[in-house]
Amino acid sequence: MKTRIGILGYGNLGRGVECAVRQNDDMELAAVFTRRNPADVSVLTKSAQVCRINDAADWKDKIDVMILCGGSATDLPQQTPEYVKYFNVIDSFDTHARIPEHFANVDAAAKENGHIGIISVGWDPGMFSLNRLYANAILPDGKDYTFWGKGVSQGHSDALRRIAGVKNAKQYTIPVDSALEAVRAGSNPELSTREKHTRECFVVLEEGADAAKIEQEIKTMPNYFADYDTTVHFISEEELLTNHSGIPHGGFVLRSGVTGWEREHKHLIEYSLKLDSNPEFTSSVLIAYARAAHRLASEGQSGCKTVFDIAPAYLSAKSGEELRASLL
Amino acid sequence: MKTRIGILGYGNLGRGVECAVRQNDDMELAAVFTRRNPADVSVLTKSAQVCRINDAADWKDKIDVMILCGGSATDLPQQTPEYVKYFNVIDSFDTHARIPEHFANVDAAAKENGHIGIISVGWDPGMFSLNRLYANAILPDGKDYTFWGKGVSQGHSDALRRIAGVKNAKQYTIPVDSALEAVRAGSNPELSTREKHTRECFVVLEEGADAAKIEQEIKTMPNYFADYDTTVHFISEEELLTNHSGIPHGGFVLRSGVTGWEREHKHLIEYSLKLDSNPEFTSSVLIAYARAAHRLASEGQSGCKTVFDIAPAYLSAKSGEELRASLL
Repeated sequence: MKTRIGILGYGNLGRGVECAVRQNDDMELAAVFTRRNPADVSVLTKSAQVCRINDAADWKDKIDVMILCGGSATDLPQQTPEYVKYFNVIDSFDTHARIPEHFANVDAAAKENGHIGIISVGWDPGMFSLNRLYANAILPDGKDYTFWGKGVSQGHSDALRRIAGVKNAKQYTIPVDSALEAVRAGSNPELSTREKHTRECFVVLEEGADAAKIEQEIKTMPNYFADYDTTVHFISEEELLTNHSGIPHGGFVLRSGVTGWEREHKHLIEYSLKLDSNPEFTSSVLIAYARAAHRLASEGQSGCKTVFDIAPAYLSAKSGEELRASLL
Repeated sequence: MKTRIGILGYGNLGRGVECAVRQNDDMELAAVFTRRNPADVSVLTKSAQVCRINDAADWKDKIDVMILCGGSATDLPQQTPEYVKYFNVIDSFDTHARIPEHFANVDAAAKENGHIGIISVGWDPGMFSLNRLYANAILPDGKDYTFWGKGVSQGHSDALRRIAGVKNAKQYTIPVDSALEAVRAGSNPELSTREKHTRECFVVLEEGADAAKIEQEIKTMPNYFADYDTTVHFISEEELLTNHSGIPHGGFVLRSGVTGWEREHKHLIEYSLKLDSNPEFTSSVLIAYARAAHRLASEGQSGCKTVFDIAPAYLSAKSGEELRASLL
C-alpha cells in the first residue's frame, strides 16, 4: 500500500516533490492542487490529477500526506493550520523567528482533528537544525557555526530585481574560506557578518540605466548587502540565462567543542551539503518526512512535530531489522 | 532531579564517561563498578563510590542509567543482556555483523524487566550510522562512502604488538585524499580497499629484533595490512610515548546522489568528525543517549533501541520549546 501524496502549490518546490515521489517506490502522487486554472497546469506524472486548491478538502480520504509547497511569508502561516484539519501535512516553513507561533497554531488544529503536521522541514531549517541539535547534545561545551553557500539566495536576488533600472539579477551567497578554516582549526573565532560570507551579484540592466549608481545602491542596501563585501557584475541577459539559471545551494554546520577532565581535548563535528538544486533537495527531505508522517498517523499519533521529534527510522522505507543489518 | 549514572568498567571509555558527566549539569555520577579491587581504583569524581562489579545489582534503585564500558568481543554480548535486568543501560557494541543477534538478546531481557537498553552508541556505529540513514532516506538514488581517520586503530595497534620482536606500536588509519576528492566531485568512484585508506605504523623493536623481517611480516599480514599500502617506521620507545600517546580519530560519511525528473541534479551530503580523543567523544555520545534512556524509561517504554529509534530531542537537556526557539 503506497503512501498517497498530494502537492499543494506547483512551483519549483512542488515540481521537486513530484520528482522525489518518482524516486521512492513506496510513494505515489495522487493530485496536485493549484490556484491557477487546472487546465493550464501540466504536470509530469501522468497518473496524477490536477485540481483547484478550493477542492482540496474533497480529497481528504484519498491523500495520506499533503505537502504544502507555498511560501513562508504569507501562504504557510495560513495554509498549514487550515489543511491539517483535513490531512496529515508537511511544510517547509522557514521564518525562524516565527516558528514557535506557527508550531502552536498547527499543533492545536492537528490535535483537534487527529492529524500529524510536520513543520519546518528541509535543510535549514531541517537537516542543519538536526545537526545543530545532535552536535550540541554531544558537545555541550562548544560553539556553533553555520555557513551558507555557495548558492543562490532567492531573497537577495529578488531585492536586486526590485531596484529601478535592473531588468534581471541573481545573487550568490559565498562562505569565506578563511573563516571556515579558522573554525576547522579549532580556534573558536568570533566572526562578524562580513567575515563569514561575501555576496556576488550578476545584474542585467534596463537600457539606459546608470550602472555606477545601481552598483552603489546595491552595495549600500541595508540588511541585504551593506554589512557584506559585495561584488557586482553587469552582464547581458543572455549570459545570465546561460550561466546563472540554476538554483544551487548548500552550506556547512560546524560545532567545535572540548572534552576531558581539564577540557584538554578538542573535537570538530562538521556537516555539509553541496546541492545542484535547492528546491529538489528540499523536496527530497519533505518526502522522507511524509513517510514519517504517514507512519506516525497510522500509529494513532497527532499534533505538530518538527524534525527534532521524529526518530530517524521513521524516514526510511526499510524495516528496523534491515536498517540495523545494513546501515548501523 | 539529576540523572544518576553508573559506569561499569573503568578503562579509557569509563574515564571518558566520567568526564562527560561533569560537563552535563543534569547528570551525576553515582558509582563506578570494577572487576579490580575497589580500593585500588581511584576515580576523579569525589562524590562517586567505587564498587565491585558483583555488587552492581544492589544499586538497582540508586542508578537511573548504567553505562557499560566493556569491550565488544567478550564483555558486552554477556553484560548488556545481563545488566538490563536491573538497569536502563547504554553500550557501544561495535561488532557490526553481530548487532542483530545482540539486539535480540538485549530486547528480550529489557522487555521482560521493563527497562530500556540502547546499544551500539558512539560514532561508528552511532553518529556515522545516523548520517548514513538520514542521507539514504533523503537521496534514495545514490552511493554511500565511509572513510575513517586520520586516527589510531586499537585493533591494528594490538595486531602489531602481537608480533614477536615488537615491544610497542601504534597504527594510524589514514583516508586517501584523492579518493575523498573523487567522491566529493560526484564521480561516484568504485574504490578498492587499497584506494580508500593507507596504514602507517610506528613500531618499537625489542633489542636484537630483525627490522626487515618484521616490516615484511607487517606488510603481508592478512586482513590487517596486506590489502593496504602500509608504511612502517621504527622509532624509540621514548619517541612513541612523546609523539604517539594520544588516541585521536575521526572520519567521513558521504552520500552522493541525484534528483530531478531525469536524474539531472547532483547532491553531496558529507558528515565528518575530527576528534582529539576517540574514547572521550564516544563517551560524550553515550551520555547524550543516557539522557534519552532515562526519559524513555520515565515514559514507561521498554526494550532494546538503537540510535535509529530515538527522536533527536530526547538527547538534549533543553525543552521542546527551547529547542524550537534556539536550534531549529
